Amino acid sequence: MSASASASIGVTGLGVMGRNLARNFARNGYPVAVHNRTPGRTRALMAEFGHEGTFVAAESAQEFVAALERPRRLMIMVQAGAATDAVIEEFAPLLEPGDMIIDGGNAHFADTRRREAALRGRGLHFVGAGVSGGEEGALNGPAVMPGGSAESYAVLGPMFERISAKVDGEPCAAHIGADGAGHFVKMVHNGIEYADMQLIAEAYDLLRQVGGYAPAEIAEVFRAWNAGRLGSYLIEITAEVLAHTDAATGRPFVDVVADAAGQKGTGRWTVQTALDLASPVTTIAQATFARAASGRTALRAAYADLPGGTTAPLSRTEAARFASQVEHALYASKVIAYDQGWTMIQDAAAEYGWTIDLAAVARIWRGGCIIRASFLDRIRAAYTADPELVGLLAEKEFAAEIADAQVPWRETVASAARRGIPAPAFSAALAHYDTLRAHRLPAALLQGQRDYFGAHTYQRVDRPGAHHTQWAQPGRPETTA
Amino acid sequence: MSASASASIGVTGLGVMGRNLARNFARNGYPVAVHNRTPGRTRALMAEFGHEGTFVAAESAQEFVAALERPRRLMIMVQAGAATDAVIEEFAPLLEPGDMIIDGGNAHFADTRRREAALRGRGLHFVGAGVSGGEEGALNGPAVMPGGSAESYAVLGPMFERISAKVDGEPCAAHIGADGAGHFVKMVHNGIEYADMQLIAEAYDLLRQVGGYAPAEIAEVFRAWNAGRLGSYLIEITAEVLAHTDAATGRPFVDVVADAAGQKGTGRWTVQTALDLASPVTTIAQATFARAASGRTALRAAYADLPGGTTAPLSRTEAARFASQVEHALYASKVIAYDQGWTMIQDAAAEYGWTIDLAAVARIWRGGCIIRASFLDRIRAAYTADPELVGLLAEKEFAAEIADAQVPWRETVASAARRGIPAPAFSAALAHYDTLRAHRLPAALLQGQRDYFGAHTYQRVDRPGAHHTQWAQPGRPETTA
Repeated sequence: MSASASASIGVTGLGVMGRNLARNFARNGYPVAVHNRTPGRTRALMAEFGHEGTFVAAESAQEFVAALERPRRLMIMVQAGAATDAVIEEFAPLLEPGDMIIDGGNAHFADTRRREAALRGRGLHFVGAGVSGGEEGALNGPAVMPGGSAESYAVLGPMFERISAKVDGEPCAAHIGADGAGHFVKMVHNGIEYADMQLIAEAYDLLRQVGGYAPAEIAEVFRAWNAGRLGSYLIEITAEVLAHTDAATGRPFVDVVADAAGQKGTGRWTVQTALDLASPVTTIAQATFARAASGRTALRAAYADLPGGTTAPLSRTEAARFASQVEHALYASKVIAYDQGWTMIQDAAAEYGWTIDLAAVARIWRGGCIIRASFLDRIRAAYTADPELVGLLAEKEFAAEIADAQVPWRETVASAARRGIPAPAFSAALAHYDTLRAHRLPAALLQGQRDYFGAHTYQRVDRPGAHHTQWAQPGRPETTA
Repeated sequence: MSASASASIGVTGLGVMGRNLARNFARNGYPVAVHNRTPGRTRALMAEFGHEGTFVAAESAQEFVAALERPRRLMIMVQAGAATDAVIEEFAPLLEPGDMIIDGGNAHFADTRRREAALRGRGLHFVGAGVSGGEEGALNGPAVMPGGSAESYAVLGPMFERISAKVDGEPCAAHIGADGAGHFVKMVHNGIEYADMQLIAEAYDLLRQVGGYAPAEIAEVFRAWNAGRLGSYLIEITAEVLAHTDAATGRPFVDVVADAAGQKGTGRWTVQTALDLASPVTTIAQATFARAASGRTALRAAYADLPGGTTAPLSRTEAARFASQVEHALYASKVIAYDQGWTMIQDAAAEYGWTIDLAAVARIWRGGCIIRASFLDRIRAAYTADPELVGLLAEKEFAAEIADAQVPWRETVASAARRGIPAPAFSAALAHYDTLRAHRLPAALLQGQRDYFGAHTYQRVDRPGAHHTQWAQPGRPETTA
């Protein structure tokens, strides 16, 4: 080991996320080697932030690797996909058995599984670490979701916990599980974020179009909600956005923004993966499709004059009562969305052989990340009390809250339908609730149809076996395989 | 060319679908070479059905290929996936430039694109042909959706059209488009089938649980609907299934069937692909997830005692009025589901460079396939009148029907929400309608949130550019990139 091998960790890829993570490590007392494909960014970091801690600037890959203590910890912060593979291929040959490569980007968990297996075969640890919280979180405390081996977490865990956000003195970082588990859980975080944002957007739309409230008034409603069980970063910033007035026009900011929502793909990945796992993440799916629909300019133009529902205005008293209904609907739907996310994590754990501490997932999402919310404490408590909990609504307090919320929730969805206000995520959450609590589902009819047209067979409720009705025969006899 | 090269087409893979297609070709006057990996099935076919036409039984791959006239037409009817690749690799080396391999299985269109490109490089035509209608359709007239080159369709088209189902004298077969277009359109057919079946199942569930009708009574309701605008194979067989009494128990058949629905993956593929295309196929998505949810035994058991909605029974008069509402809801939701499917086909055509005759898709689905329905005539007419039609509701008659249906549709969705009957597909269809006709969507708020927490920027309604509000700065100034 050369005398210069003094850095606890190295960060390559000094875009805003990589730079801020490197500064976060340095500010927390870790000597950090920094490297970028083009050295300009390395020099800029040193000039602007070099005083914040101990940095080792490396201009070549060899220099960078030589600067790291053993086992080397090399964090790559480049674009997901081909760029990540290229950087891995650049550095892996320079490393030695036991060294660790950490991918802190938004990789697809299947890529992380592939890379982990390949590098394990070469004696290296590969850690796909979900990092949430954007630029600001990267600098001041993100939520960190590392996958990979327990051995790697023994070395990296204290560092991640140190730089992470803290809530009630607890770090927002924990070992999620083997290989791609960290990136998987980060993906589901983003899927839940899609659902949460869409539910908030639907609540806003209903308050405005049914309740008749102005954006600034709705900002006040959200501020009040933020002080209660809905308290969360997303509710808080929603109030800020709704209260903002556009300087150029004097109009509410939300009215000058184009109403076509963008996406970066993790919501899409969540839904695609959920389909493979047979996890019914319907609120996340509806949220993802709602963004897609908002961008369908030609369809929206062609359909803009189609008729809608009733539009009788509410009195201020009725509007206030309606707002209270919407709070129940938002809370209940949000519980469903998170429940769907946790179910999906359980499904993936079973599918990929991961051991995931479901309470820890709630714990680390309480800070640093976009969906940080006070009710994650409750989710954590539920999975701490029963690590095998089949779903959130099997826990007494959540069940009681939903029982309390269900009538106003139903009224909210019914109002949206009657008044022609799109509420795809609210409706999907309620339908999910009613699907899972149904004693009999019409899926039985589907099985009958499938047996009729495709001889797909069906199960019976009263005896085992795969049964088929000979629909074309007189008397329609049943055969059993 | 040897004297024995007399078969117009060869079929390898003599499972029930392959055998029935081979018989269909033979019954239509085409000499057919038949081959199976194990010769038992070939011999059984010859023994049982050899008299139906001119068959050439081949026991080896060489014999099989030698039996085909040039350009050889070799249809493979084996399992999708690795088995298909294996059969292609077995036969391709025995073929000559200009010969044609037809895959009549349910391949993923991306595999078909890959195979078509690879075989084109070897001078062979590869035709992914969606074949719908199950065993019975394969024998007596399927809907056939071939992709691949126009050159291959010039040879194969007349044969497919001859063996296909006929409606009003027109064949249910047409060239769909290049490479994977045929399998793509077949996939969307199946996705629509999922949605159609789920919508029917929700209608049944509402008639039973809200309307208070018995299954045999609902069978009569469906029979009446089948005589109207809902007339279709699926409505027809639904009535048959609901009217059926289980012989063993004397109970309605639908009550002895387990209520967990199976799936074969094409619904899932449709939704996964739609996410990549940003096509909002929400009713298909909800139908696919509803099947998954029905199979979540542990969650259903844990949630079975959660409270539901109001349960006040309807009088017979009210029930009859409710049934008429449900007919409107079913029809309107079905139009939305089909509209989502056609939109997705248009999106794929743009993405993959296919030229797809949207009217022809409706024409060939009128017979042979599972979703054959009288209203496909109307869809065909709409796309014939305007091949560039942006969506079905941009056509006057459909728009008028939906305008007429929308109040009862809204009342149906509201009733389901209030009474606790899951109606995920009905709700999703209505939300889709209300999303696309909305003059302003709350997606504007989402863009504000995304700019707040991630500096993702937003578009403005009043001037071009990517804008960002400096949320942390006093006065929150806006910058423009």
